[in-house]
Amino acid sequence: MNSPARPRLIVIGGGFAGLWAVRALARSKIDITLVDRCNHHLFQPLLYQVATAGLSAPAIAAPLRHILRNQRNVQVLMAQVSGIDRTARTVTTSDGNSLSYDYLLVASGANHAYFGRDQWAKHAPGLKTLEDALMIRARILGAFERAECANDPAEARAWLNFVVVGAGPTGVELAGTLAEIARHTLRSEFRHIDPTHARVILIESGPRVLSAFEPAMSGKAQRQLEKLGVEVRLGVPVADIDADGVLLGSERIAARTVLWAAGVAASPLGAMLGAPLDRAGRVQVKGDLSLPLHPEIFVGGDLASISAKKPVPGTAPAAKQMGTYVAQVLQARLRKRTIKDFVYRDYGSLAAIGRMAAVVQMGPLRLSGFPAWWLWLAAHVFFLIGFRNRLIVLIDWAWAYFTHERYARIITTDRTSKISKAVNG
Amino acid sequence: MNSPARPRLIVIGGGFAGLWAVRALARSKIDITLVDRCNHHLFQPLLYQVATAGLSAPAIAAPLRHILRNQRNVQVLMAQVSGIDRTARTVTTSDGNSLSYDYLLVASGANHAYFGRDQWAKHAPGLKTLEDALMIRARILGAFERAECANDPAEARAWLNFVVVGAGPTGVELAGTLAEIARHTLRSEFRHIDPTHARVILIESGPRVLSAFEPAMSGKAQRQLEKLGVEVRLGVPVADIDADGVLLGSERIAARTVLWAAGVAASPLGAMLGAPLDRAGRVQVKGDLSLPLHPEIFVGGDLASISAKKPVPGTAPAAKQMGTYVAQVLQARLRKRTIKDFVYRDYGSLAAIGRMAAVVQMGPLRLSGFPAWWLWLAAHVFFLIGFRNRLIVLIDWAWAYFTHERYARIITTDRTSKISKAVNG
Repeated sequence: MNSPARPRLIVIGGGFAGLWAVRALARSKIDITLVDRCNHHLFQPLLYQVATAGLSAPAIAAPLRHILRNQRNVQVLMAQVSGIDRTARTVTTSDGNSLSYDYLLVASGANHAYFGRDQWAKHAPGLKTLEDALMIRARILGAFERAECANDPAEARAWLNFVVVGAGPTGVELAGTLAEIARHTLRSEFRHIDPTHARVILIESGPRVLSAFEPAMSGKAQRQLEKLGVEVRLGVPVADIDADGVLLGSERIAARTVLWAAGVAASPLGAMLGAPLDRAGRVQVKGDLSLPLHPEIFVGGDLASISAKKPVPGTAPAAKQMGTYVAQVLQARLRKRTIKDFVYRDYGSLAAIGRMAAVVQMGPLRLSGFPAWWLWLAAHVFFLIGFRNRLIVLIDWAWAYFTHERYARIITTDRTSKISKAVNG
Repeated sequence: MNSPARPRLIVIGGGFAGLWAVRALARSKIDITLVDRCNHHLFQPLLYQVATAGLSAPAIAAPLRHILRNQRNVQVLMAQVSGIDRTARTVTTSDGNSLSYDYLLVASGANHAYFGRDQWAKHAPGLKTLEDALMIRARILGAFERAECANDPAEARAWLNFVVVGAGPTGVELAGTLAEIARHTLRSEFRHIDPTHARVILIESGPRVLSAFEPAMSGKAQRQLEKLGVEVRLGVPVADIDADGVLLGSERIAARTVLWAAGVAASPLGAMLGAPLDRAGRVQVKGDLSLPLHPEIFVGGDLASISAKKPVPGTAPAAKQMGTYVAQVLQARLRKRTIKDFVYRDYGSLAAIGRMAAVVQMGPLRLSGFPAWWLWLAAHVFFLIGFRNRLIVLIDWAWAYFTHERYARIITTDRTSKISKAVNG
């Protein structure tokens, strides 16, 4: 397959940027190797639904080699990248393979960051991978189980307090859905506790929720959250997180379940490229998404930092646009041409809030509540990869709509017990 | 809820025996506590489908407290039982709770057993829980990934050899489905290996597969397996299992993936009851499923050993019958009556073999191949708990039928890499 005349492209990361670049090169005379440490592409915008037991893990993920099975110029390798040699133009993997490239696209994304307080990580998990989601699901469902078993009322209350740190889209989705679970899904299933007494507290150090939206929309989102039963606390930074809860300014909130949706840091692979990084660890790229000293190396998605008038957000549409753009640059270069610099097209923002509520800001259009939720649903189902996943997700949601049930309320890790042991000392 | 006049029943285990006992007591004046270390009832007959990526974990599991939410005389506790005091009539849990009972039903089931060769466990995992299934799924899918990455052809071949030990229903289902995955599901998804060259070897120390069936049906099952591409090796016991494969008599079979479906041992809770155990660790009970010295303690399901003319099999129908029977005994005792000893009713046996093949032996009826598969499908979907799960499973299977795709091909544990590291030294 590697005929010597054909240039070799290595793409690191099968997220939106990497996968869209690969697919846009389907008819190119380029041999592509896609390397990812997971075997699947993940539809991250719905990851919070897996964490809150609304969807099963396979409903929002598809094997990369299945997606790309008919694209004959691609091979998929499930491996962890351990090194990048810019001089020899090779990528090495942790299982000892060394792969040569003519072009390289690094799109390994971002992870949660604790602003230097890494000791918070074990008390306040973040949501980036399917493993994170299944672990958070086990913690949330396990908290209600432990409250039911608790002999001490204060202990039970601590298990029924849920704190979400960060009121961006993920934090808002998690808080809204948690409130829905406590108020509706678990109603009448417990004998010693009343799940509707659970408190869900959404903490944001900034002045409003969903700061990417206009202030008026943030206000509407906040009112919808409060209607669902979420306590929104704005303008106060978290001072500390430990096994017993959160220190908010000087106020202690006892909570055994704290979820982190406050900060991201770029993948550590960015630091291997020898290019300047921004404060979040993202790689500063040129207007064509390549490195200043290495025009054969591109960076896309959440790992890329573009110096533009308006910052490019760390969202799925932005990552897809970057991936597709890198494919266009490569095709132009093979024809000895150049194309214009990357321009991010903002088609609008959508954020779900909970059962049947959302906010949408799209060009001149402003929606909130139920109509916004329908638009959000349609957009997310439409963009889910693969017809079958869309169908299953639709059925799951139709079911949840009528019954308040959440399909995937299954604890499948043994981490709950480990976590509770850690929490209990 | 615990009015002092009402007797208290503790049920340990929310499998078929425990759950069916609890449900049969819905209208009784008994206060029931159901204790399980999992939060869900598991439909074990379809567990191999989760292990082979045909179904997602939530498709075959439902939260116990959701199933029982409307039965007001039941409370569900998610806890691990650490002790049983027959004199004080208390059950203690590992989180320090102590629960009193007037009646006790122990139905904690069985686990895989390695006949004293526990060092085989890490090389040849067995299939009893959802965690087992997700781990086996990760191993199977990870093996093809590692074969694709391997530089050495012998190494790749070892990753493409799959051995299943034990040709009971689980072993037959796993082997048949593995062959289907290699021949159909993964076809054309790899670039360096040909998954259809994978070998699936089913090992059985006895003289035939599915020994619970008549010899003629065993022969038909074996021919169907061989048609799917499974190599069936009968009458040779496994001498050793290590990281490199299996020693079969004096023959070495190099295989990086070995699955164990050869033996079960009863739950260790049986040994806490002070009653005689049989060779498999099961508790020897009287004809009414109670203990000889403790008429208030019952044992049901896979943990019970009944001295009857015909042995009671360790199947879901037998466990349900025992659970329902214990409920009848309790109701009779509350009215100071007695009922006849437990009699197992054998409604027949079904075993799936792979895509569109099965064997059925039911009264005078004998079916194999496609008609048997339809009956197997109908029976399993019918018995799946909850309308919604049935619907989802039907859609999953209809999809698989037409496309050969397997829905749940998502690796969600990080154990693959740990396993491969262990295997590679």
